[in-house]
Amino acid sequence: MTQKPLILITNDDGIHAPGISALVEVAMKFGDVFVVAPDKPQSGMGHAITINSTIRVHKSNAYPGAEAWSCSGTPVDCVKMAVNKLLPRKPTLCLSGINHGANHSINIIYSGTMSAAMEGAIEGIPSIGFSLLDYSIEADFSASKVYCEKIIEFTLKYGMGEGVCLNVNIPKLHVDEIKGIQVCRQARGTWEEELDERTDPSGRNYYWLTGKFKNFETNAKDTDVFALDNGFVSVVPSQFDMTAHHAIPKLEKLSTPKK
Amino acid sequence: MTQKPLILITNDDGIHAPGISALVEVAMKFGDVFVVAPDKPQSGMGHAITINSTIRVHKSNAYPGAEAWSCSGTPVDCVKMAVNKLLPRKPTLCLSGINHGANHSINIIYSGTMSAAMEGAIEGIPSIGFSLLDYSIEADFSASKVYCEKIIEFTLKYGMGEGVCLNVNIPKLHVDEIKGIQVCRQARGTWEEELDERTDPSGRNYYWLTGKFKNFETNAKDTDVFALDNGFVSVVPSQFDMTAHHAIPKLEKLSTPKK
Repeated sequence: MTQKPLILITNDDGIHAPGISALVEVAMKFGDVFVVAPDKPQSGMGHAITINSTIRVHKSNAYPGAEAWSCSGTPVDCVKMAVNKLLPRKPTLCLSGINHGANHSINIIYSGTMSAAMEGAIEGIPSIGFSLLDYSIEADFSASKVYCEKIIEFTLKYGMGEGVCLNVNIPKLHVDEIKGIQVCRQARGTWEEELDERTDPSGRNYYWLTGKFKNFETNAKDTDVFALDNGFVSVVPSQFDMTAHHAIPKLEKLSTPKK
Repeated sequence: MTQKPLILITNDDGIHAPGISALVEVAMKFGDVFVVAPDKPQSGMGHAITINSTIRVHKSNAYPGAEAWSCSGTPVDCVKMAVNKLLPRKPTLCLSGINHGANHSINIIYSGTMSAAMEGAIEGIPSIGFSLLDYSIEADFSASKVYCEKIIEFTLKYGMGEGVCLNVNIPKLHVDEIKGIQVCRQARGTWEEELDERTDPSGRNYYWLTGKFKNFETNAKDTDVFALDNGFVSVVPSQFDMTAHHAIPKLEKLSTPKK
């Protein structure tokens, strides 16, 4: 008898966020769902892991029909705990999200949601991170659920290749307004930071990190930013080989000549 | 009159670590040094940024002859604070390290040291992360200093290309034993986790994240792991475009056909 797919779900907004609840609901159509998610919001944690302190996990009844654990660590810790300690076997899929807010372009590198998906890929599990371009706690995930389902179905059928995970972003639109899916690349862009300087009651300065995202490629039509601006769901195949292969020949002068 | 190079230095082991002190000493030969480094150890913080709490900075007299600030945030926060608030102008170079411990292969993604260098590259600054394969607080940085100097000199002369930063790892050897420098790629490898389970005095379980690095490419000769195992300093040009470009055509079936 073939086992049902085992689907690991995590996120960075915490185990009780509406976005992960929507993803659990979709994933249950495809197999057994196992949730290991942070016990508190962990946005912006990137690929952080907990090595200078301890990790705790607690069983949760948040998702009837799914085994669920809350974890004191980062999103990447959640995947490590799941794969190496909590799961009964290697999962078929690792899903992260649905994030409340965009993870397109350079945001992939800061995102706990995408870092968890990337950690799944590092562990050799087909992994997908989902994000909706709506930060609100009251965000409407109905269109997201439709597209999550399409993309999970595709992935279970065709896979995505070794060492790859998918970065999926969904525009803040009604499902009828979304034009479809575009497989594309990460746009070049950055955050123009505005460090918001304030003074505490004792007269000492402190800062809030804030800013605006700036797209450097306003004319490119093959990027995630373009796809989203034009009403498409963006899917960027992403990888953890960070080598700038094109730059190796240019630096060859630095290598000690081989004897 | 040409201005002297302005060199931003950060790390993830904290402003008082011996490794950053060694790097400041080398960098002073090339220009004006400006240090913004974490006020406590921030190893394994990856590309985390502080968005759910505040950031504080304090002027430090740790490095006579250099302006220095300690920062309550992550290594990436340090670069953002430096570039957007503390530095008098855009720096010529951003250096991170010298890390106490290896950042070869997949470790780049977990490393606060390398994430700080990557953030420098995102900000458009030629950036280098340096790591010595010795975790000890009493590590000998004398060989590291020789190779940091060579690589900084090369970078100031030739650059490294847009969107690229260098991931430099130095073997734990006497300078006379090091065979030279190899420009190479990130080896495929992973951590085989062992979650060390313990019981606290109240009888509740907790975990320490630990494990062993495993190189998947034991026969490859063009990787950082091979270079280091053979007595070379490894230099991997690295980038923040995480798109798996090779995977885009394979996923084309998922795209909604263009009308």
